[in-house]
Amino acid sequence: MNKKHEFRMKVRYIDVDGMKIVHNSRYFVYFEEARLDLVEKENYPYKQIEDDGFIVPISESRIFYKKSIYYGEEVAVITWLEYLKNFSMKFKYKIVKDDGAIACEGYTIHAFIKTDTMDFIELPEKLKDILIKYVENS
Amino acid sequence: MNKKHEFRMKVRYIDVDGMKIVHNSRYFVYFEEARLDLVEKENYPYKQIEDDGFIVPISESRIFYKKSIYYGEEVAVITWLEYLKNFSMKFKYKIVKDDGAIACEGYTIHAFIKTDTMDFIELPEKLKDILIKYVENS
Amino acid sequence: MNKKHEFRMKVRYIDVDGMKIVHNSRYFVYFEEARLDLVEKENYPYKQIEDDGFIVPISESRIFYKKSIYYGEEVAVITWLEYLKNFSMKFKYKIVKDDGAIACEGYTIHAFIKTDTMDFIELPEKLKDILIKYVENS
Amino acid sequence: MNKKHEFRMKVRYIDVDGMKIVHNSRYFVYFEEARLDLVEKENYPYKQIEDDGFIVPISESRIFYKKSIYYGEEVAVITWLEYLKNFSMKFKYKIVKDDGAIACEGYTIHAFIKTDTMDFIELPEKLKDILIKYVENS
Repeated sequence: MNKKHEFRMKVRYIDVDGMKIVHNSRYFVYFEEARLDLVEKENYPYKQIEDDGFIVPISESRIFYKKSIYYGEEVAVITWLEYLKNFSMKFKYKIVKDDGAIACEGYTIHAFIKTDTMDFIELPEKLKDILIKYVENS
Repeated sequence: MNKKHEFRMKVRYIDVDGMKIVHNSRYFVYFEEARLDLVEKENYPYKQIEDDGFIVPISESRIFYKKSIYYGEEVAVITWLEYLKNFSMKFKYKIVKDDGAIACEGYTIHAFIKTDTMDFIELPEKLKDILIKYVENS
Repeated sequence: MNKKHEFRMKVRYIDVDGMKIVHNSRYFVYFEEARLDLVEKENYPYKQIEDDGFIVPISESRIFYKKSIYYGEEVAVITWLEYLKNFSMKFKYKIVKDDGAIACEGYTIHAFIKTDTMDFIELPEKLKDILIKYVENS
Repeated sequence: MNKKHEFRMKVRYIDVDGMKIVHNSRYFVYFEEARLDLVEKENYPYKQIEDDGFIVPISESRIFYKKSIYYGEEVAVITWLEYLKNFSMKFKYKIVKDDGAIACEGYTIHAFIKTDTMDFIELPEKLKDILIKYVENS
């Protein structure tokens, strides 16, 4: 279905560094906020995922920085998936500035781990059900 | 010369998240601390770089997460460069845990910008001089 | 007029620590977000304050913690002033949880400094005009 | 014995804000780092405290800011206690800059809670034993 999730946020003062721009590490926090907002909007909030006994640790993360982001800006973090596989999934992100310019593009790759044994498991059905519509070209 | 810089640090409580592990975004902070420590140890501290009128913004960053890092651990961030080019340079990093296990590998790619005009410039000589010995296979 | 400003926010995952509660230091960030939201809603955003050539550094901050705050909660930061004096002002805050319980109470005291000389100055008129209605018992 | 603990640290770039000074909230992080360093140096590290089944939540925190702190400075966080009571203890802190100037003074008040029941408990003996020598005028 190629659905994309949009998470709008106001850039916080605490996130800018001594150059008065959002620090490179904070982009990953914005990605996380968008991802957690997506699952919550799909009625499968992070707390429920935890209660269901698994976690989705990140195995790889990457960002291509295009334009600086400043305090007070309202930005949109667009989130979707490149793939959903048996043992991994890849989220893609784009942060769009108020004027439409792209601030960055990036992705995070996740695995699935059962909390009690800390063993890798296959993609849980419940997660697949809510995410499948965000997979591109699917 | 294939020199590598080692930055030893104690993992701080503030850096762990609700899963009691260092948050994925904080690894990029550790990379930055290591990078800034390297230039300082080479007698070209960040403040001097700023005073010399240029900055080295990140155009791309990437991490492969291997093992979780916990509060109180003493880790070593190993830093060197893959290349130093006219208009970009690529720092590589490895975070090593106390028991020798690799916590992550990653890199950051940087450009050079003159602060007064915000134009891209070529790699400043002074920076090249201190970094050249950290370039791998050089 | 005893006006009070309400800033509603969703508690972010990045703000919780290894005990899965919002870290004590982050409460001060929430106070700041509320304070900046107040001046923005009064059409005197922080950027304009900076452009007008002064800053409002904190000389004292204090919090009485009552109840823990958890990831995902929606809280309200209530902000007003205890006083507006010639050379200082005191903001008061209360963070209220979803169920009406008070998470904390606190305050910050600020001075006024001219950015170009870094000298202390008297309360700027423009700031007084927008804040006077938030002073309690005035 | 009026013992005081000194925790030396290098100010990190991530801790400065858009005014190029350490953000007001990060002082509380420095206090925490100093406090955790103290108990570790006394051979009762935080992990052991957790394993012993109790936590020491903060009920009040306060800072008097005197001078700004900048990236790259080496500062000393001096830590001791004003009192150790049956149901609370009060840590005091002073952050001293390289030139001997005092950056801030502050304190945190803590209670003792048993982790399994989350009930308040009396000051654990083991904690009292290591902290008693840091109580002023004792």
